[in-house]
Amino acid sequence: MKIPDQAEPKVVSDLGEFGLIKRIMQIHADKSNSGSRLRVVPNDLLNGIGDDCAVVRIGDGRLLLYTCDALTEDVHFRLDRSDLYLLGRKSAAVNLSDIAGMGGKPTYALVSLALPADLPVSGFDLLQKGIRDEFVQYGALVIGGNITSSPTGLAIHIFLMGEVQEANLLTRSGAKPGDRLCVIGYPGSAGIGLHLLERGLTKGQNHLHYVHAHQSPTARVEIGHELAVSGFVTAMLDTSDGLSSDILHLTGSSNCGATVELVRIPRHIGFEEICTVVGLSVQDALLNGGEDYELLFTVKPGTPNQFLTGLEQKFNLPIREIGTISSESAVNVLLIPDGSRIPLAPKGWDHFG
Amino acid sequence: MKIPDQAEPKVVSDLGEFGLIKRIMQIHADKSNSGSRLRVVPNDLLNGIGDDCAVVRIGDGRLLLYTCDALTEDVHFRLDRSDLYLLGRKSAAVNLSDIAGMGGKPTYALVSLALPADLPVSGFDLLQKGIRDEFVQYGALVIGGNITSSPTGLAIHIFLMGEVQEANLLTRSGAKPGDRLCVIGYPGSAGIGLHLLERGLTKGQNHLHYVHAHQSPTARVEIGHELAVSGFVTAMLDTSDGLSSDILHLTGSSNCGATVELVRIPRHIGFEEICTVVGLSVQDALLNGGEDYELLFTVKPGTPNQFLTGLEQKFNLPIREIGTISSESAVNVLLIPDGSRIPLAPKGWDHFG
Repeated sequence: MKIPDQAEPKVVSDLGEFGLIKRIMQIHADKSNSGSRLRVVPNDLLNGIGDDCAVVRIGDGRLLLYTCDALTEDVHFRLDRSDLYLLGRKSAAVNLSDIAGMGGKPTYALVSLALPADLPVSGFDLLQKGIRDEFVQYGALVIGGNITSSPTGLAIHIFLMGEVQEANLLTRSGAKPGDRLCVIGYPGSAGIGLHLLERGLTKGQNHLHYVHAHQSPTARVEIGHELAVSGFVTAMLDTSDGLSSDILHLTGSSNCGATVELVRIPRHIGFEEICTVVGLSVQDALLNGGEDYELLFTVKPGTPNQFLTGLEQKFNLPIREIGTISSESAVNVLLIPDGSRIPLAPKGWDHFG
Repeated sequence: MKIPDQAEPKVVSDLGEFGLIKRIMQIHADKSNSGSRLRVVPNDLLNGIGDDCAVVRIGDGRLLLYTCDALTEDVHFRLDRSDLYLLGRKSAAVNLSDIAGMGGKPTYALVSLALPADLPVSGFDLLQKGIRDEFVQYGALVIGGNITSSPTGLAIHIFLMGEVQEANLLTRSGAKPGDRLCVIGYPGSAGIGLHLLERGLTKGQNHLHYVHAHQSPTARVEIGHELAVSGFVTAMLDTSDGLSSDILHLTGSSNCGATVELVRIPRHIGFEEICTVVGLSVQDALLNGGEDYELLFTVKPGTPNQFLTGLEQKFNLPIREIGTISSESAVNVLLIPDGSRIPLAPKGWDHFG
């Protein structure tokens, strides 16, 4: 965040993405200007702004989950180096990941498109097929949307609904001191993939994993659901902003802190070498790369190790404990290999950072 | 639609907005590529792509309505002549109008924003307050969203949910031969307002109604709900594309035709004069201006006239019969003042027209 010294923020980039979200929460919490026609806001809203999904009760223990996410040209992708089928799949996956982060199952989606008039029909079809193929794997269906022309590039805004039983809902705010902090997959892979793509280094040995992580993320819907029904998990979210920022989202929402051990964060083959190639420190690459779309979660202290190793084997992915939740609110510590304890700062992706 | 003679459409503007929607319906109906992990698509989907809202059953006779609509810079508005508070209200209203078109009540919204980094915070606040104030009038609440930076201008994509009892749901497809076709308000007003704004003619006598219709549309949520519970209405949609196109959406979905009498379409004070000022024929201005966000509906033949006149008095708006539904599918006729019957063609707004 670039806040001028002692000055009011003037433009949205001064506030940063998370400053803007706080402002939105404040403005929409104020319903005083509601006029005489206000009907009573129903008491079925369980979670509003501030988690992976909003949550609404519909009875019989059923909860509906609502999320939206967007991919826009020249922010999230460059059209000249994008495969539109993969872009469609990714635009669905980033939304699926939010449903996974709450332990839910996706159901229906709406797709709101801004389309350049000269987009080839073949590319339009590929985009739609990518969206469809990503969703139908999990039984989700596109049931509506909107199309507008766009003089300034392609934008794909997707709204996704899901469902979860109230007993299985996982939020960011359930972590307790002593809980063990765990992560799925290889944090930072998508961020390194973007660096490789920007340098045209997509063919190198061991590079494919990283490029694939950026272009074709897999939402962890099934693992998320298994975690949710296990009874061991206390809090969860998807990792979209970078591990450091996402850990602080979890501890901040749960009013606690965390101690994270750098050496315990899983690294894919060739990680250190590729960090050198793209000019990132290992620590920065592991902690601050965005768009991983994996899951970060906490389990109760007594959770058997076989629970995590069993899931690792079932899904053929690392599912690792990387730290511990502490009682000190807002104190997040990184334990680095020389034995020092340094502050864990949220240096992940901020749209206006 | 600009389809090259005998040639395949090459870019999306060749297909046009409605051609693209058909293509989306085809692609998303094909679930053959769903892989082995497909779970059964639930049988709770009542209406998918192709009406104002998608409709999902949740039990106890309750239906959930889902819609989305977007306003994007340099397509729907020019930032240099927009009041951001009014823009916020309008971006909410265009979505509320879709819920009104099905007879529903709005409940919750998600807002997906693409923001220029240099947007003033004061403008951001006005936009949010406009969205909030428009929604809370009807008890609807913003419960989530997304923010992305945008190098190419402001875009506001809103996803709105609503609810309606199954017995009261109105769709586009329920019209029957003999039904009477009715419209609320003064069709074409918003289109004329846009012409006046483009010419800087916002201060003239009688101009305010038209400018206001373009900048500050009022979704007909309450009238829509009254129509839905009346038992007289057989089909309904909101008028966003222009009356000619919207009539053809209704008759097309209902597999019937219509005869519309031009002289029966309500005109606001000074209409003919202002048409001359902006260089439009009266017929074109009435039938082909988009963005009215009024309601178009059909009532059963025996509906008492007092039903419509009572609503007119209650809501202080014209609610007029403008034609009749016929049995001839795809035959839509316009009766003009010299007594001729001419084809009613869909000349309303097409994003790629």
